[in-house]
Amino acid sequence: MTDDAQHPDGAFASDNYAGAHPEVLAAIADANVGHAGAYGADAWTARLGDVVRRHFGEQAAVYPVFNGTGANVVALQALLPKWGAVVCAEGAHIATDEGGAPERVAAIKLLTVPTADGKLTPELVDRQAWGFGDEHRAQPAVVSLTQSSEVGTVYTLAELRALTGHAHELGLRVHVDGARLANAAASLGCSLRELTTDVGVDAVSLGGTKNGGLFAEAVVVLDPDAAPGIPYLRKMDTQLASKMRFLSAQLLALYEGDLWLRSARQANAMASRLAAGLAAVPGVRLAQPVEANGVFAAVPAAVAAAVRREYHFYDWDRSRAEVRLMCAWDTTEAAVDALLDAFRRAADQQLPVG
Amino acid sequence: MTDDAQHPDGAFASDNYAGAHPEVLAAIADANVGHAGAYGADAWTARLGDVVRRHFGEQAAVYPVFNGTGANVVALQALLPKWGAVVCAEGAHIATDEGGAPERVAAIKLLTVPTADGKLTPELVDRQAWGFGDEHRAQPAVVSLTQSSEVGTVYTLAELRALTGHAHELGLRVHVDGARLANAAASLGCSLRELTTDVGVDAVSLGGTKNGGLFAEAVVVLDPDAAPGIPYLRKMDTQLASKMRFLSAQLLALYEGDLWLRSARQANAMASRLAAGLAAVPGVRLAQPVEANGVFAAVPAAVAAAVRREYHFYDWDRSRAEVRLMCAWDTTEAAVDALLDAFRRAADQQLPVG
Amino acid sequence: MTDDAQHPDGAFASDNYAGAHPEVLAAIADANVGHAGAYGADAWTARLGDVVRRHFGEQAAVYPVFNGTGANVVALQALLPKWGAVVCAEGAHIATDEGGAPERVAAIKLLTVPTADGKLTPELVDRQAWGFGDEHRAQPAVVSLTQSSEVGTVYTLAELRALTGHAHELGLRVHVDGARLANAAASLGCSLRELTTDVGVDAVSLGGTKNGGLFAEAVVVLDPDAAPGIPYLRKMDTQLASKMRFLSAQLLALYEGDLWLRSARQANAMASRLAAGLAAVPGVRLAQPVEANGVFAAVPAAVAAAVRREYHFYDWDRSRAEVRLMCAWDTTEAAVDALLDAFRRAADQQLPVG
Amino acid sequence: MTDDAQHPDGAFASDNYAGAHPEVLAAIADANVGHAGAYGADAWTARLGDVVRRHFGEQAAVYPVFNGTGANVVALQALLPKWGAVVCAEGAHIATDEGGAPERVAAIKLLTVPTADGKLTPELVDRQAWGFGDEHRAQPAVVSLTQSSEVGTVYTLAELRALTGHAHELGLRVHVDGARLANAAASLGCSLRELTTDVGVDAVSLGGTKNGGLFAEAVVVLDPDAAPGIPYLRKMDTQLASKMRFLSAQLLALYEGDLWLRSARQANAMASRLAAGLAAVPGVRLAQPVEANGVFAAVPAAVAAAVRREYHFYDWDRSRAEVRLMCAWDTTEAAVDALLDAFRRAADQQLPVG
Repeated sequence: MTDDAQHPDGAFASDNYAGAHPEVLAAIADANVGHAGAYGADAWTARLGDVVRRHFGEQAAVYPVFNGTGANVVALQALLPKWGAVVCAEGAHIATDEGGAPERVAAIKLLTVPTADGKLTPELVDRQAWGFGDEHRAQPAVVSLTQSSEVGTVYTLAELRALTGHAHELGLRVHVDGARLANAAASLGCSLRELTTDVGVDAVSLGGTKNGGLFAEAVVVLDPDAAPGIPYLRKMDTQLASKMRFLSAQLLALYEGDLWLRSARQANAMASRLAAGLAAVPGVRLAQPVEANGVFAAVPAAVAAAVRREYHFYDWDRSRAEVRLMCAWDTTEAAVDALLDAFRRAADQQLPVG
Repeated sequence: MTDDAQHPDGAFASDNYAGAHPEVLAAIADANVGHAGAYGADAWTARLGDVVRRHFGEQAAVYPVFNGTGANVVALQALLPKWGAVVCAEGAHIATDEGGAPERVAAIKLLTVPTADGKLTPELVDRQAWGFGDEHRAQPAVVSLTQSSEVGTVYTLAELRALTGHAHELGLRVHVDGARLANAAASLGCSLRELTTDVGVDAVSLGGTKNGGLFAEAVVVLDPDAAPGIPYLRKMDTQLASKMRFLSAQLLALYEGDLWLRSARQANAMASRLAAGLAAVPGVRLAQPVEANGVFAAVPAAVAAAVRREYHFYDWDRSRAEVRLMCAWDTTEAAVDALLDAFRRAADQQLPVG
Repeated sequence: MTDDAQHPDGAFASDNYAGAHPEVLAAIADANVGHAGAYGADAWTARLGDVVRRHFGEQAAVYPVFNGTGANVVALQALLPKWGAVVCAEGAHIATDEGGAPERVAAIKLLTVPTADGKLTPELVDRQAWGFGDEHRAQPAVVSLTQSSEVGTVYTLAELRALTGHAHELGLRVHVDGARLANAAASLGCSLRELTTDVGVDAVSLGGTKNGGLFAEAVVVLDPDAAPGIPYLRKMDTQLASKMRFLSAQLLALYEGDLWLRSARQANAMASRLAAGLAAVPGVRLAQPVEANGVFAAVPAAVAAAVRREYHFYDWDRSRAEVRLMCAWDTTEAAVDALLDAFRRAADQQLPVG
Repeated sequence: MTDDAQHPDGAFASDNYAGAHPEVLAAIADANVGHAGAYGADAWTARLGDVVRRHFGEQAAVYPVFNGTGANVVALQALLPKWGAVVCAEGAHIATDEGGAPERVAAIKLLTVPTADGKLTPELVDRQAWGFGDEHRAQPAVVSLTQSSEVGTVYTLAELRALTGHAHELGLRVHVDGARLANAAASLGCSLRELTTDVGVDAVSLGGTKNGGLFAEAVVVLDPDAAPGIPYLRKMDTQLASKMRFLSAQLLALYEGDLWLRSARQANAMASRLAAGLAAVPGVRLAQPVEANGVFAAVPAAVAAAVRREYHFYDWDRSRAEVRLMCAWDTTEAAVDALLDAFRRAADQQLPVG
């Protein structure tokens, strides 16, 4: 992998190739005033509690952590009995991209189901939510969904309500991996509360890093009865920051005002622009609806190879020649247009001579 | 616990009550230039590798992580066979202050020995380093020592050589919890290499946070054969940062020049000043030699209570009326003198009326 | 669930509903002579070592354990690096019937693939054996197959050679869950060595319980370099028996002579008889080839319900109306014929009146 | 280690060198009648429930497992929150002899205290039972005591009441490692209920193996609210037997009548006889009160070496020249007298010539 620092358009490889938003850095500097209580006993973390309650409702509690893997592990461990299992999509980040962290750090069993578009449905949940009371089966106890999903799709509020309703009927709790929750809210035009608390979500891994932070995520618990012991779990899972004010300050920068929304809107808009352009490139086909900040497209191998001489991006599914192109909070129209131009040039070169 | 942000002398509670050094913040801002490869594939992490090799020797490898618990868990897990155990001091941070993280995240058994001054010796190691080949006994495989120690003492180079020599003879690896390694180097006036590689240490948890970082520590492996698989372990232990350049930039700010040493020297000097002053306060007695940035003192209960009206600090051993006072990179002479004044006033009030 | 002790035909629910073979009980009684070294330091365990070497080759090492879950967890943990993952069938016992033991006891990540007939192929392995060197992905390091499989099918020697050859080329080790290995050997008419060592298997969970033991299984390591530390792992995984001679005596009863083979042949023959009879029952269809001691059949719901008034057996896949009928070492022709009679009567009752 | 099968006096090395009681083997044979429900759905396990309720009270629930390590791990895991820790004696079996099983299988933190005689007291518990609510400290949540203890001493009922009362006041649950609970009951002349339920114990690891079983122990839960989920935990901790009737039959043989008591009395009586004799051997000194079936004695090295030419037994504390001599259910007066004779002869040979 190359250092894309010199290529400001490198953003398309991942939204975590982007840097930090200047307002986030400014907030850290503002918090750097002398001494403050450690491990969350500081004014910034207290204020973050207020902000999170404003966004998610009065009962919400927030626990800043370092990264998304940490947020997911802590949240799921808190929601599960020791013998519990998590129903999730086969392509869920927790199942495929965390090196086995849930299993290894928190002794969690994952029960996966294939999905066409990265989204679970009540019917898909039922493929794993069975065997209650059978000691041979890791007990399904949590449904974990990713919003926006790993393939750039977004659950509608109705879909969420159906899913959480079904899960709760079965006695399962609902966790949202919200590394890109802001992008989903921006996409749906709804509040964070409408997207989570109001549709029955029990706990959220709330993203900060990809949306303009350095590294800052949080576990947000919406039903406190559902997730006991998080202070202890966060510590023993290695996710307790001593100088926590610097995590909280980042999250404040994002969520106290509307930076979270502005940033997500920009990323989403650039993905839409990119998708529209790509769909018009001969031989290229969108593989998923583009509803957030990711574009998944089937691209002829020769075209992908040609564009890669200039840009770094990932294969998503080699067997189907699908690639992933991500937009970030700082992706510009000019960058999108330049990338589209590269795709068009590559496609032209593949045309048979008439 | 109170927010000490308005009380710049709050530092005496812990060195992690201090903020970040301005040079560290500047380095983060400098690294915030457009896009860069994630997960360590960036120029800052590459440069950090060079800096670490310069400090610790050509064979050294560095793996930035978020915090000290993470560094310790990853380093120990890498050094141990699955059936291995760690010999450490009863008061070691890994044993008492990490919520059971080594046991829970990495299935590590700790074999503890009481120490008078926080320091292990070959004889103390022998109290737990036995039972080799006996399947009923978790196999002693690593000695973990803390430098500078949890009670502010510093292992001399001769002590380290004796300890690592003995450990290696027994077939054990040596890990240093170096959250305050800089303070030990400053205290001994030696290089980081003389303090670790040259005396036979196998791996180090290298501190950054307490010495002026936001949150940045690193696992530094000195014998690569001793600690395989760290990239995988760091990920599965939830300690892999996506925007790693911002961890590496902090560590560069500290270790590329001499900020690590300047900061540690300041903290140590303030602890010495504080110790000298305290020793002269009637009724107060130093409980440990003051060799780094911590002062441990037996203080009459009434005196401690009186000082606590103004200052926040921790009891260390209530049964012996010992308190802990920590100095940080930003502790000033004025702050020390003001604290000493508070102690003297409190002691005066306790004197019997003649 | 009911106690089927009074219904000697209850065997069809599971082969572990059967009791112990009289020769196994006799062997336990024979071993009950005064005192013997504990934890395997006894004459029976030594003799078992000889027997296992005779069956599996000179390099084989045997570690008796209590049950199949224990054997699988110990064997897989020994074969894997700490960051390793196991590729297995979606319906593998380790994935679906062990309550998450591999994940929870040994921090193992399972990577599952759907199979039509319970058997892996090189192509199916490839669906999960990728991402080598990528720290985000739990590293595929072992292929675990079940022989005979969970749905009563048997890998041929050629299939095994193809699978182990492919796995080894990729750098993966091969584990066989052999709770019913004897049934596979009986089915193929080959030796245990031909079935494992000679086709490149690295370690086996060798069954005893289902084939006539009380409770006795063993980890058999065929490539000692592949599976270090088993004595320690067996102890820490709670599978070390103090009076091990009584485990070894059971395994000796089975494997020193040909009891293992006689018992497996009987169970297999009864399954064949049952399958032949069932295939002729109107409305019933065999769902899998019957190659060992299990019969999987699609049965009309009303027929299954009627037979269940007399017999206890399990649904296998309710969505496809498949049931599982298992034969054991002690299943008799008379019992099979009585069961078939019950099926025929039930089917007759379902026929429309002409 | 040698096979002591030919030396019926070998029993002194360990009570698990003894074989199985003939009544236990007979019970297994009696249970071997055709088919029975697996995993505990059988008549013997149901009857065991009755027997355990008779012994321990109506609220008691019993879960047979394979061995003591398994019983301890399952019981402790059930009693603890995920962030909980166990206060136990430094020499507790769970801390020193289980290869780290509690830490590794169940992510349990042990907080140990040194004891003079293997027994905890409220004061000793207080040395670790602190830091409640502090996320940095693994939360003390269970006191685990061993009855009879690892050094052959027995808690009196008053001592137990003091300990459980103190623990409960602090909010801690109480677990008894009762691998030798029968020996304690025999020693005190009390019922099992008086020894556990009536003094406030929450859960017991109830021994069977050392007292005449093949391998059979049980988790007995006295306060069901204190230990949820044991069926799941037992399965995932690899301790669920498929043919459970054969575990239950062993425990029935021991506990349905008075075999447990007869066997324990015999072992205790032989230890008393041995102790009385040893105390009279010149140079030998009893190191602990002999209250159950173990004798711990300081023996001159030359004497120990001489006796070891004939007998196998373990050093307990080499630094204090202490050895351990265990009596079992089948130890005879003749065997004790022969051993004593060997000690006397060895001691005589060490006497200076007059």
